Amino acid sequence: MQANFTPGPSQLYFTVKDHAKRAFRDGIPSLSHRSKDFEAIFDSATTGLKELLGIPDGFSIVFTSSATEIWERSIQSLVAESSMHFVNGAFSKRFFEIAQQLGKKPSKIEMADGQGFHSHEFNGNPEVIALTQNETSTGVSLPLSFVHGFRTKYPQALVVVDAVSSLPYPVFDYSCIDSLFFSVQKGFGLPAGLGVWIVNQKCIDKAEQLLAGGTMVGSYHSLPSLVSFAKKKQTPETPNVLALYLLSKVVADFLHKGVKAIRSETEYKAALLYNWLESAEVAKPFVIDKTFRSHTVIVAECASAMSKIVPALHAQGLFPGEGYGKAKSTQLRFANFPAHSKEQFEWLVDALEAV
Amino acid sequence: MQANFTPGPSQLYFTVKDHAKRAFRDGIPSLSHRSKDFEAIFDSATTGLKELLGIPDGFSIVFTSSATEIWERSIQSLVAESSMHFVNGAFSKRFFEIAQQLGKKPSKIEMADGQGFHSHEFNGNPEVIALTQNETSTGVSLPLSFVHGFRTKYPQALVVVDAVSSLPYPVFDYSCIDSLFFSVQKGFGLPAGLGVWIVNQKCIDKAEQLLAGGTMVGSYHSLPSLVSFAKKKQTPETPNVLALYLLSKVVADFLHKGVKAIRSETEYKAALLYNWLESAEVAKPFVIDKTFRSHTVIVAECASAMSKIVPALHAQGLFPGEGYGKAKSTQLRFANFPAHSKEQFEWLVDALEAV
Repeated sequence: MQANFTPGPSQLYFTVKDHAKRAFRDGIPSLSHRSKDFEAIFDSATTGLKELLGIPDGFSIVFTSSATEIWERSIQSLVAESSMHFVNGAFSKRFFEIAQQLGKKPSKIEMADGQGFHSHEFNGNPEVIALTQNETSTGVSLPLSFVHGFRTKYPQALVVVDAVSSLPYPVFDYSCIDSLFFSVQKGFGLPAGLGVWIVNQKCIDKAEQLLAGGTMVGSYHSLPSLVSFAKKKQTPETPNVLALYLLSKVVADFLHKGVKAIRSETEYKAALLYNWLESAEVAKPFVIDKTFRSHTVIVAECASAMSKIVPALHAQGLFPGEGYGKAKSTQLRFANFPAHSKEQFEWLVDALEAV
Repeated sequence: MQANFTPGPSQLYFTVKDHAKRAFRDGIPSLSHRSKDFEAIFDSATTGLKELLGIPDGFSIVFTSSATEIWERSIQSLVAESSMHFVNGAFSKRFFEIAQQLGKKPSKIEMADGQGFHSHEFNGNPEVIALTQNETSTGVSLPLSFVHGFRTKYPQALVVVDAVSSLPYPVFDYSCIDSLFFSVQKGFGLPAGLGVWIVNQKCIDKAEQLLAGGTMVGSYHSLPSLVSFAKKKQTPETPNVLALYLLSKVVADFLHKGVKAIRSETEYKAALLYNWLESAEVAKPFVIDKTFRSHTVIVAECASAMSKIVPALHAQGLFPGEGYGKAKSTQLRFANFPAHSKEQFEWLVDALEAV
């Protein structure tokens, strides 16, 4: 027995191996992406995701090869000049840098690692407000009230939300956001190689408007191209068909279990670990302000106790994620995804307790 | 028993299913893309490909999510103003159109479907000469002597070769080309979701030069970014780790069988089918000029006999690919990849003979 708490690629959801076996038996990897059978898989994945995540009519779902790609495609298709980025870690920073690399003029509000944001205020009139709802590098989560608070303050801007390592946990109010995305190797417990991008009509209109005005919005994976194929339940290129099939199956499994049960288990498991961290001597939560503590990526500040904690966990078959970047030698990250069972978290906390 | 001759996604190479089973057993889909184990997979895939395809030192191999992406990335990273495209079918045309969508000023030399090119001549001074060595939509292959003939005539231009549906069959002279690419779901018999891009130092220098001069060359998948990660045996984003693993395994299988054996079997199978087409009453080769006939995608003009041929093949469990686009009702396409055995081709020709 072992458990892998690395925040991505995550350990697989327990049903994935069997779904993959069935996929190979049924010839899914050789399926034409222009066939009716493919369209049925596309439809099953998107219909299931809409139900699971409560996505209202008027939103479209398109697929890329990674969430990194969606950083690029969303800047390319939604921004002519400027985006405003809330940066508080390596991944929100990378989103900002991609906007720079694409020749835009992004701005940022920056907080230190481990911190959240206390104000929506900024200067300027950006086309996109880019939010990293769950900063995988530091375990800081933006409260949903904060995410939803931009709509009334900046009605002109598109609110673009990176929820790579939190979905399917957070319950978004879709009237307050325009674009939402994630990659499947985190909260969905699937092999990497697929990004899921959810957009409303305002995003599509904006991309069409940029295109009509002569702004370069990309080629096969521009938002207009992605959406026009999605209407036919297809993709512009030969996609990762196997990944789409596995996504459709895991989404069905999540629906069968019930998203409420998944969310309450997430809270239970997070409470277990944070409670231990609050009272432990060898470690403490890296994120001090409880308002900003992620439920799905929990970061422990271990400092000099790392050399005691890590071998003790490994000896039991428990594999925490390393701290990100320069925090590698002082922090541990624990993913708390649907693939991680309550039993695995109880076992983890028992093992930590024994250190 | 059945055999699938669709030219992409192809039927799987016979070892893939077992490799996938082992991948799931060994936790490959949850492997961190920043781990030593991942670097070993990356190294195995690239080292194996260099041996298999005879790629000399000085060339780098990087990975994208599809060959469609490489159309985009190669224009983005290698062209400031203009590329010259040899267009003779749907896919070479798409490469040209992507250059237009990216805001470049591409030119084209165009031939009708089923035709090849008789001259290297064109006006202008393009930065890239874009060649579709094997036009999957029509079964036209550019002879290697033609592909290699641009170097001395246009020493300033980068020669970029799309060999999506021909590799590992053709034996390129790497002193005459600068960039070569394919996707794994054709000649390598793998699930879709990975593009392989081979570039020399001239390509890397060109991209660096564009970047330094302020041309937008992309973000995470610009050539400089891809190459800098490849040097560490890594990728900029979390990639399709499973696909890279499977590629490394199938390349090892191909090496074990021997690329010479694969190539001579390809010629044997192509000869079987073309010989039948030459003498058949119900069908004939779509490509008239033998010089341009593809060995790996064989297109049959069946006209009114389609309604006899297709059910007869289906009844035996043989699945030809449909003709591309408007040729859907009059042509059939037969992929001749390493995944297609000699026995399957003998069986196919027997079944056609019986029609």
